[in-house]
Amino acid sequence: MYIAMNRFQIIKGYEDDFEQLWKNRESYLDEVEGFLGFNLIKSKTYKDYTLYASHSTWKSEEDFISWTKSGAFRKAHQGAGTNKHLYLGSPQFEGFNVVQ
Amino acid sequence: MYIAMNRFQIIKGYEDDFEQLWKNRESYLDEVEGFLGFNLIKSKTYKDYTLYASHSTWKSEEDFISWTKSGAFRKAHQGAGTNKHLYLGSPQFEGFNVVQ
Repeated sequence: MYIAMNRFQIIKGYEDDFEQLWKNRESYLDEVEGFLGFNLIKSKTYKDYTLYASHSTWKSEEDFISWTKSGAFRKAHQGAGTNKHLYLGSPQFEGFNVVQ
Repeated sequence: MYIAMNRFQIIKGYEDDFEQLWKNRESYLDEVEGFLGFNLIKSKTYKDYTLYASHSTWKSEEDFISWTKSGAFRKAHQGAGTNKHLYLGSPQFEGFNVVQ
């Protein structure tokens, strides 16, 4: 199993706007090969920002990589460059393979 | 749902030793109220270290907090101070509530 996380630092006060973006988003994930599940998750609020992450699980890293090269991925990320005012810095990607 | 992650920076070359620690560890988690699942997960290797995380899921943040105050938690973490030579810096805890 593989876990793909994208970490987002959301400027304080914009948390609701950020959550709304995800609520209204069409991910096109459900029919993607190897896709298991998705959650938007929220950690704590630091001095300048609140930490969020997208958290998706996949049968394998290969399935995830195939998705990132697909038309479904491009469709899901169109318009991702807008709403820059919500973010402190760029999202940070981290992928994890399950060891145990 | 709540996701508790502890991030570990493991000095290059000690990855197998670190994974072995987790294989041999008795977590006493299975009978803990609200516990859903546990994985040890491995991300990529940076210049000086490999990023790992423990990843556990819980019905609620309250269940997780109760566990950290329990005897089961103390038992699972006894000896956690040994093997310091594996780590670059201290583990970093991050907890996440599922928003969506």
